[in-house]
Amino acid sequence: MSLYQELIPFFEPKSIAVVGASEKLGTLGRGLMLNLLEKFRGKIYPVNIKYDRVFGLTCYKSVKEIPGEVDLAVIAIPARAVINVAKDCCDKGIKALLIISAGFKEIGPEGAEREKRLVEIARSCNMRIVGPNCLGIYDAHTGLDTIYNPSDRQGKPKPGNVAFISQSGALGAAMLDWLAGSGVGLSRFISYGNAADVDETDLIEFLVEDPKTKIISAYIEGVKDGRRFMNAIRKAVKAGKPVVILKAGKTMRGIKAVTSHTGSLAGKYEIYEAALKQSGALIVNELWELVPLLKALSWLPIPRGNRLAIVTNGGGAGILATDATEKLGLIMTNLNSETIEKLKKSLPPHASPYNPVDIIGDATAERYEKALEIVCQDENVDMIVIIALMQSPTLDADKLRKVLIEFKKKVDKPVVFVAPGGDYTEKHSRAIEQEAKIPVFKSPEEAIRALKYLVIWKERYERIIKES
Amino acid sequence: MSLYQELIPFFEPKSIAVVGASEKLGTLGRGLMLNLLEKFRGKIYPVNIKYDRVFGLTCYKSVKEIPGEVDLAVIAIPARAVINVAKDCCDKGIKALLIISAGFKEIGPEGAEREKRLVEIARSCNMRIVGPNCLGIYDAHTGLDTIYNPSDRQGKPKPGNVAFISQSGALGAAMLDWLAGSGVGLSRFISYGNAADVDETDLIEFLVEDPKTKIISAYIEGVKDGRRFMNAIRKAVKAGKPVVILKAGKTMRGIKAVTSHTGSLAGKYEIYEAALKQSGALIVNELWELVPLLKALSWLPIPRGNRLAIVTNGGGAGILATDATEKLGLIMTNLNSETIEKLKKSLPPHASPYNPVDIIGDATAERYEKALEIVCQDENVDMIVIIALMQSPTLDADKLRKVLIEFKKKVDKPVVFVAPGGDYTEKHSRAIEQEAKIPVFKSPEEAIRALKYLVIWKERYERIIKES
Repeated sequence: MSLYQELIPFFEPKSIAVVGASEKLGTLGRGLMLNLLEKFRGKIYPVNIKYDRVFGLTCYKSVKEIPGEVDLAVIAIPARAVINVAKDCCDKGIKALLIISAGFKEIGPEGAEREKRLVEIARSCNMRIVGPNCLGIYDAHTGLDTIYNPSDRQGKPKPGNVAFISQSGALGAAMLDWLAGSGVGLSRFISYGNAADVDETDLIEFLVEDPKTKIISAYIEGVKDGRRFMNAIRKAVKAGKPVVILKAGKTMRGIKAVTSHTGSLAGKYEIYEAALKQSGALIVNELWELVPLLKALSWLPIPRGNRLAIVTNGGGAGILATDATEKLGLIMTNLNSETIEKLKKSLPPHASPYNPVDIIGDATAERYEKALEIVCQDENVDMIVIIALMQSPTLDADKLRKVLIEFKKKVDKPVVFVAPGGDYTEKHSRAIEQEAKIPVFKSPEEAIRALKYLVIWKERYERIIKES
Repeated sequence: MSLYQELIPFFEPKSIAVVGASEKLGTLGRGLMLNLLEKFRGKIYPVNIKYDRVFGLTCYKSVKEIPGEVDLAVIAIPARAVINVAKDCCDKGIKALLIISAGFKEIGPEGAEREKRLVEIARSCNMRIVGPNCLGIYDAHTGLDTIYNPSDRQGKPKPGNVAFISQSGALGAAMLDWLAGSGVGLSRFISYGNAADVDETDLIEFLVEDPKTKIISAYIEGVKDGRRFMNAIRKAVKAGKPVVILKAGKTMRGIKAVTSHTGSLAGKYEIYEAALKQSGALIVNELWELVPLLKALSWLPIPRGNRLAIVTNGGGAGILATDATEKLGLIMTNLNSETIEKLKKSLPPHASPYNPVDIIGDATAERYEKALEIVCQDENVDMIVIIALMQSPTLDADKLRKVLIEFKKKVDKPVVFVAPGGDYTEKHSRAIEQEAKIPVFKSPEEAIRALKYLVIWKERYERIIKES
């Protein structure tokens, strides 16, 4: 049985047992049941010794009493009771155990012993475990969802092609929420907690095989087996799937904090970083970089090269973008003479037809349309940064949105949009982002950093292919 | 007459002549009149040869016909007519001329000649000029406002203590809008355009003397006289007023773009940068850094040192914050033993009473209150980063807001708030920011960067004081 076959029941089970299912307010078992009843399309078996029925469904005393086959058991009961339930699951022939419960390795020696025992049981009957001490899994495609935070405060992304795995449950949930707000579509989300059995490497290897996932992202504190992990990343890159890593524990004090947080060992970061790059991973150094990069990877094509053109209605913003382009090692392209001639003919006399193309302060949406049309056809242009100061009286935001939606459909080069400003600008930028699927930024420097990552991805991918 | 006295009529005139005043839709003269009629509390004299009345006010053929005294003339007519109007203003004894009109140095030799003539006229009668080719002035205190972008798309900050000067009109307007959306209060905003007469240095010298301004910020492309400029910054710093500079034209290609944008010369950036630092300026390298830094400077006290404590309900976010602290050269403080004992008593058993203080996933607003109360009293703590993963079921966002409002009132150390997430988190974060005046960030790294700037400011300030 392949790893993919072993792990797929965690995401696409036909039937689930919820051990600890409950209607009682404030319980985890209630949160899980409500999530599953709302979204999951397979069979749900509540299990709880205390009840006969939960939310109208027959409730079983034990998984062993369940009449049908069970693909996945989700465990949300106190830690001390988990061992016996795991044994029952073995007996029932369940092959996938998702253990939400805390009270294992993370609480000290007693918990560590319990966790060891748990793994022994699982190994004895070829059962795989995700967790314990985790938030579990959200699968945007199948509606399997064990993230039990209140739905008014916890956003869940729409189906898409980005997978996110997180060692930390709370941070994972926050990123899930952040991604939902940003419109990035998700394939699978896994908060894998203590990784007693299934670990970060298994998950990446699974995602390499997963047809629903095109981009893999991960928040990692410690890695169990560095060599296996790097090999898995290399495999992903070879398969054309970018792997984006945010590693916590980059400094002495950060490493100390990792140890006291999860008990996992974090090695010296410089060594990790070099190995990650060597394996083709994309590294984000700071949390805020993650979502823009995932937008870029998910929505934009790979650039053919590193030559960038800027179209702006503000000279100052164009200069800042030019500075950022050079500083980040991208090339401010020289537009070819044909492009410059066309721009001269199409733009008003005080506009600048050179890169940065300044279509000046009284630009309309139509002028953007013309300039973009001309610039995107230039073979010297690999990527395009569109800057709009939307405070301008002549720029109709609704028209601009329509122009950008059409432009994005036609253009086969990466395009980002920059609009610095306040409430009005934010509202319209967001609409442009969601409807055109063009990553939007408030500053030119952030936008160009996202493009830089695309170029890095292209280089890493090409190197790994060449090496293999 | 001091420079302050010469320039104050640009901000606090008792009477204004609007040359080019009009009711005609789409004209600059109409935009100016509507802005002034809405907000300006002094006397307004429309001037336009074509009309007898504008918006119900007597309209004069020339400034010379105005019966009363005129403190400031705002000029919004075609460039070719500006020279004669300037002569009229001289004859009328007007001492302050704000020229919005474009068509001067920025369009080439003919415009440059016109601009030279304009300055000669001004010098001949001790008249000062701001502009030409600019958006002009927004004074949040007096309501003087020549920024004529439509009010639905152009936000204007509330009165406050931050001044912003901008060589670029469009970028200046965008930043004005961004600041408005962020809740930073403004003293004076000046888009000074070609700086034919009043230049960046004059403005900074004015703001040093200005009692309404505590923080000076500037978007600069080129500087006329580097030595004068650096001296003005040094004066500001000595007066305890931070000067925040965003300089465009930092790279070869960026410098080329500056030259073609404004015709002003930008020197090699490395030299500027060293001189700016030497003079005590705070330099932001990227546009998005500006607003958070202004929030921090405007709302937070100067830290006594560089030792930072973190209070978080998520371990992972705490580690990322720890990494950022060390990476940016701040100190993750060791809490004193008394603090640790108090935290141990007050927090649940699995919480961590060491820095980063992890009050764990089920933290309530009350737990934040207790932990913050204890941590802020520790003399080893100079700054506090509060992290809240607001997806948590136990954390009541409204209660947390109230806790933070009260905490901010009492604490005499800089405090920032971090909440990664989507719509719900953003909504509540914004409320916390606006009501508590605590700068809010989506990632720990951004928050700690803002604190780092406060430490840099403290160091620059102390050095300049020592040197003088």
